[in-house]
Amino acid sequence: MSSILTIAQNAKAAALELSTLSGSVRQAAIAAMPESLLAVKDELMRANQKDVENAREAGLDEPLVKRLEISGSVFDYMLSRLAKVAALPDPVGRVLEGHTRPDGLEVRKVSVPLGVIGIIYESRPNVTTDAASVCLKGGNAVVLRGGSESLRTNIVLADAMIRACVESGLPEHAVQIVRIAGHEAVSDLLRMDDYIDVLVPRGGKGLIKRIAEGTRIPVIKHYEGICHLYLAEDAPEKMAIDLVINSKLQKVEVCNALESLLVDAGSAERLLPPIAQAVSGRIELRGCESVRKFLPDIPPATDEDWMTEYLAPILSVKVVDGPQEAIRHINTYGSGHTDGIVTQDLQRAREFVRGVNSSSVLVNASTRLSGGGDYGMGAVVGISTDKLHARGPVGPNELTSYKWVVYGQGHLRR
Amino acid sequence: MSSILTIAQNAKAAALELSTLSGSVRQAAIAAMPESLLAVKDELMRANQKDVENAREAGLDEPLVKRLEISGSVFDYMLSRLAKVAALPDPVGRVLEGHTRPDGLEVRKVSVPLGVIGIIYESRPNVTTDAASVCLKGGNAVVLRGGSESLRTNIVLADAMIRACVESGLPEHAVQIVRIAGHEAVSDLLRMDDYIDVLVPRGGKGLIKRIAEGTRIPVIKHYEGICHLYLAEDAPEKMAIDLVINSKLQKVEVCNALESLLVDAGSAERLLPPIAQAVSGRIELRGCESVRKFLPDIPPATDEDWMTEYLAPILSVKVVDGPQEAIRHINTYGSGHTDGIVTQDLQRAREFVRGVNSSSVLVNASTRLSGGGDYGMGAVVGISTDKLHARGPVGPNELTSYKWVVYGQGHLRR
Repeated sequence: MSSILTIAQNAKAAALELSTLSGSVRQAAIAAMPESLLAVKDELMRANQKDVENAREAGLDEPLVKRLEISGSVFDYMLSRLAKVAALPDPVGRVLEGHTRPDGLEVRKVSVPLGVIGIIYESRPNVTTDAASVCLKGGNAVVLRGGSESLRTNIVLADAMIRACVESGLPEHAVQIVRIAGHEAVSDLLRMDDYIDVLVPRGGKGLIKRIAEGTRIPVIKHYEGICHLYLAEDAPEKMAIDLVINSKLQKVEVCNALESLLVDAGSAERLLPPIAQAVSGRIELRGCESVRKFLPDIPPATDEDWMTEYLAPILSVKVVDGPQEAIRHINTYGSGHTDGIVTQDLQRAREFVRGVNSSSVLVNASTRLSGGGDYGMGAVVGISTDKLHARGPVGPNELTSYKWVVYGQGHLRR
Repeated sequence: MSSILTIAQNAKAAALELSTLSGSVRQAAIAAMPESLLAVKDELMRANQKDVENAREAGLDEPLVKRLEISGSVFDYMLSRLAKVAALPDPVGRVLEGHTRPDGLEVRKVSVPLGVIGIIYESRPNVTTDAASVCLKGGNAVVLRGGSESLRTNIVLADAMIRACVESGLPEHAVQIVRIAGHEAVSDLLRMDDYIDVLVPRGGKGLIKRIAEGTRIPVIKHYEGICHLYLAEDAPEKMAIDLVINSKLQKVEVCNALESLLVDAGSAERLLPPIAQAVSGRIELRGCESVRKFLPDIPPATDEDWMTEYLAPILSVKVVDGPQEAIRHINTYGSGHTDGIVTQDLQRAREFVRGVNSSSVLVNASTRLSGGGDYGMGAVVGISTDKLHARGPVGPNELTSYKWVVYGQGHLRR
């Protein structure tokens, strides 16, 4: 416990100091990180190679091993994201609302850092640089705890970032990484509710559930994405096919990939055969009974399918009777992540946008377009499926709180 | 459990329906509440009289009995607040941010209701009308659970509001009240994490702690207010005296009343004697050693005093060595609620505003001016001392979430 306690206490002290530093200091620190990482590139690649070898020897599944690996292009991507985050406008000190009372009392709601953010994540090393920079951009101190398999890699990454911070004038403990492997460190972190303001777990549903249920620290949760596209009665054929393919196949293992296709009863006969033909050999379709009238060769979809995030080239397909049934199905079986409609009819689009209770609702756009990048955030620490505080992509702005600042000249309450 | 489960399920269904109704329907329902309450005024007063008598017989402390009572002026105040909330602009559907990408993809962040809000409160009956109207204004369904001592009163209030809702076209279960006394109903409510999106407990620290630690539902917490005023070296004498008296005495038992006065070492000799004289007989002062050099007759303040929310005409007083020590003291001993500075020096004011880590930071204004009323919210369900989601007064805007709405024309991810 004691080492985690020290980390947490140091983070809190750093957060207090950070909250009084100007944005230009934070910006300079993040902007200095790419160079600092370039200076240790060889060391980083050796550490990463070692992590990858150990993971393979330990029998980790190959897709998980792949996630660990920092290829040259991943490295470049990490650097470019740091530069992007550095260049974003300062999320601290924004005037969110405000007014001046007739008696001259000035009331302003101004964004301030949240404080200390703990990031608990699995193996992707790019989370280390993304999360540290996004937290810091919001004026927060960050405690990183990555997967044990990538500990060597993460330590090199963190040390380079810490060097950039200290040389730019940030407190030494603005960025910290837990340097011990094993689950005990996580259990200890979960008890640091006196020091850590919010935890962001990134990983599988099990990890997130375990963390959310095991701590009194507020948790920004990022559960699964069971994303839908609803093809309305008037959905244009080509657009429908393009959107299905892009939403499903542009990247299959991510949370905003399409998992369930809803086809209006009025367009099923027109759209299902050409869609099936277009995706043939690339996507396995599973259909409800009505779908199978038009596509008798595909296997039936069960209730289980409507609740499954495949993260694989499988797509469940259901015929629905109008927008209201589509909305009901999405609100019942979806995960509130990202859902879209394909239509040219304005009233249908508005009805769908209003009725679907999800963090992103798209009209005529690929589900893959929901996310921090396309929403202009530079980088994110995750995509919240919560409704409190942050919903959808969690970027620098979402990692701020606010305070009310009031200026008067001896104003009293009567 | 079953009755609470039914209430929670009905609330969730009502919330879904509410989220598709227009703001004018919600506004009409709230605007109809005063008339609906006026129609049952006699019944209400009889029920309230009965609650008050029972509480007195049960030996409840007289100040607590007083809180239960709906006098004529309290009743008028409740009605005027309902009218005020009805007249506020709709907090749902605000475009919080947005941009259009060069390729024409329109991205908007739009406020939506949170869903189902549970309010667990102690005896003040005006919470019943305030909370119901504020939650409803934000498009939410609300489950009210007031103190058992005021159950008769609250049922009459709730039934009148429900009548106004139903007659205005809101779902029957938009407003619900738990009609059974006893703690078991609360324990059951805390288990409704599948249906309730957020809980707002209102009452003593013990109640709030018990609720926050006993549920997986997110809780907007409202802990104590250990509020400070810091009189800087240049604080004008008259303004300082007026602000101390108004902050401390305008109402002593509320969370934004002054509890601790910090006097700069450079102004202690000049300010302490006239302040002591001005409050003599009205406020009991307790001082640190340096204070007692100037005011030898007052009792010493202990470490305990710096951490105490008196809610009584007592004020702890400490001499501090400049703004940085004031800031440090407030960030260490304060509760992050409301703290102010008295100064005419711009740099000192800015330094204080930046350094104090509280939800409201005031310059030359009474601490009693922090709150929903003075911040333009109409009415609030509480004052959050959390940093996540809502900080400070929680009004209709704070009881909304948001969703990202994206319009395209076949936009794909490349």
